[in-house]
Amino acid sequence: MTADEVESLAIGAGVLGTGGGTHPYVELLNLRKLYRQGKPARLIDPAALADDATVAVVGFMGAPLVTKERLTDPAHALRPVTMMADHTGRPFDAVMTIEIGGENSLLPLMVGALMGIPVVDADTMGRAFPEAQMSSFAIRGLPLAPFAMADIRDNRLIIDRAASQLWTERIGRGVCTEMGSIVATCSAPRTGREVRENALLGSIGKAIHLGQAVRDARQRHESPIRAVLAAERGLHLFTGKVADVARRTTQGFVRGVAIIDGFDEHAGSRFSADFQNEFTIGWIDGDLAVMVPDLICVLDAVSGEAIGTETIRYGQRVAVVSLPADPLLTSDEGLAIVGPKAFGYDLDYVSPHPGSS
Amino acid sequence: MTADEVESLAIGAGVLGTGGGTHPYVELLNLRKLYRQGKPARLIDPAALADDATVAVVGFMGAPLVTKERLTDPAHALRPVTMMADHTGRPFDAVMTIEIGGENSLLPLMVGALMGIPVVDADTMGRAFPEAQMSSFAIRGLPLAPFAMADIRDNRLIIDRAASQLWTERIGRGVCTEMGSIVATCSAPRTGREVRENALLGSIGKAIHLGQAVRDARQRHESPIRAVLAAERGLHLFTGKVADVARRTTQGFVRGVAIIDGFDEHAGSRFSADFQNEFTIGWIDGDLAVMVPDLICVLDAVSGEAIGTETIRYGQRVAVVSLPADPLLTSDEGLAIVGPKAFGYDLDYVSPHPGSS
Repeated sequence: MTADEVESLAIGAGVLGTGGGTHPYVELLNLRKLYRQGKPARLIDPAALADDATVAVVGFMGAPLVTKERLTDPAHALRPVTMMADHTGRPFDAVMTIEIGGENSLLPLMVGALMGIPVVDADTMGRAFPEAQMSSFAIRGLPLAPFAMADIRDNRLIIDRAASQLWTERIGRGVCTEMGSIVATCSAPRTGREVRENALLGSIGKAIHLGQAVRDARQRHESPIRAVLAAERGLHLFTGKVADVARRTTQGFVRGVAIIDGFDEHAGSRFSADFQNEFTIGWIDGDLAVMVPDLICVLDAVSGEAIGTETIRYGQRVAVVSLPADPLLTSDEGLAIVGPKAFGYDLDYVSPHPGSS
Repeated sequence: MTADEVESLAIGAGVLGTGGGTHPYVELLNLRKLYRQGKPARLIDPAALADDATVAVVGFMGAPLVTKERLTDPAHALRPVTMMADHTGRPFDAVMTIEIGGENSLLPLMVGALMGIPVVDADTMGRAFPEAQMSSFAIRGLPLAPFAMADIRDNRLIIDRAASQLWTERIGRGVCTEMGSIVATCSAPRTGREVRENALLGSIGKAIHLGQAVRDARQRHESPIRAVLAAERGLHLFTGKVADVARRTTQGFVRGVAIIDGFDEHAGSRFSADFQNEFTIGWIDGDLAVMVPDLICVLDAVSGEAIGTETIRYGQRVAVVSLPADPLLTSDEGLAIVGPKAFGYDLDYVSPHPGSS
């Protein structure tokens, strides 16, 4: 993976973060440093994994807002991986991310560079989601436990067994909140075969491609928004100015609502979106417009840069774009875990994307 | 240990529970059954432990109120012990309780009977305390982690390392709350030598003696209250009728205040006591009367049976008794961890007991 591809990945991951973390700037700085030290990240096609290869599945858990105060430290990210290898007694052959959106998309690159193992071109969400069980592994019935967690002090624990994937999330979230709402995690190791059969494949390549499209458009003074739409078969839902944001960090999440007043073709209309780390449901003038698991991306109207729920603020001029969710997420099994009801909304999934619902 | 001694232990442990759990009736039923099955508990003097013997330190963590709904299951109590032995790769030679008060005093007997290992005649509190770090091991600087926790579903975890004993409690309490405010725990294994040097020795024998004194007094139609006072150099602080109780189960604890209106020699006076699982501070007519770490025991005025903060209610006729805390708890190191400030009160420790403060 070239240093240039990492730059593109950071931009693409911001868009796919669907509000849960912006452009992962601090992680990018860490990676630039690792590249300068001659520790590049290597990307590996899931097809190249041996059936019995052991893959570490890593992710930060918590409220993205906190990462703006407590900056990411690669040594911290590594800790639960080491704990898990000690726990299982088996070293890891490769590493992958739980989610391709936001900061977690660069996390396995840091871990892989430090450990000298390749990064699998796959994830488990095809975007970002706020909860650990909102993953393709959980949809397919694979357990999340053992689940290792570490904070930046010297607190470490392993959820050895859990009654369900949701219990792993529930207990993990309680721990995460006590630890300051940001922890590095390593969930149950996966074999190469399990990754191939149950992960969402090619996510990192896709995010690099998306980020490259945005960068190319900027270079050519074309619209980065249009580049995002073209790269991902996206829909342009709204254009406007952020009018108000209600936001609080609670129970290990950033929760709230953002309100955007339209301009140009949307003058006189209002878009509002709820969020739980990521944007979950969007309304235009009170009518449902888009919902999980479809991606709701709020992008800077000029640069195409993703705007996260932790940094969105009054006055920003934005385009609201929706990208279609991976078909696994919109299947019945998928919607049970990542659909609107899983987020506490008494709504049936409908999608603005052709063929999605 | 005879079945009769177990009956006495249950009564004595209720008194030493200082409000945190009443007479451990369900545990007693479990033990009677184990005795009938030919699985008695064996008591061992700490002096008889080999220096390098491995001792399991067990306790239930949570809000005592919950145990009135979710009855104790010996198999559940055993689970964290098995987890810890697997984690360290070393089987246990003996088992001891974190605290001699309330249900936790019978817990090691169940574990010992099921595992066929002896119960050490010692504890780490000399009473009951609400938080895991309020222990003689913590006062002496020994870590509580690794710390294994299990609930009655299939949720299990081990806090592998913690930044401090207080962090073990903090993270553990978060987990405990998510798990339903009652979990079985096994804290860091101790060697025989560590137990001898840092535990409070002879606690179980003392509780049996106390319980026997109460039973003897009942038999002879004498005052069980006077028997408690005589057995433990206690002070009789108040006699009255429970007038009001404010109680809530919150953050893994039972918290609240109990108000007792005096009769007989205390007619016209009012005793009030705050509690966090255990009674923490008591006032008579607004004046400080007694505080942690001294024991505040609310006993049925007639039977001498302990009344817990989870069952105390309007109309009960009670005697309020204080027993002196172990000298380790009232040392400067002890007070830092179990004194009034550790419970959030801006008070210096004073004691009604001669020579205690």
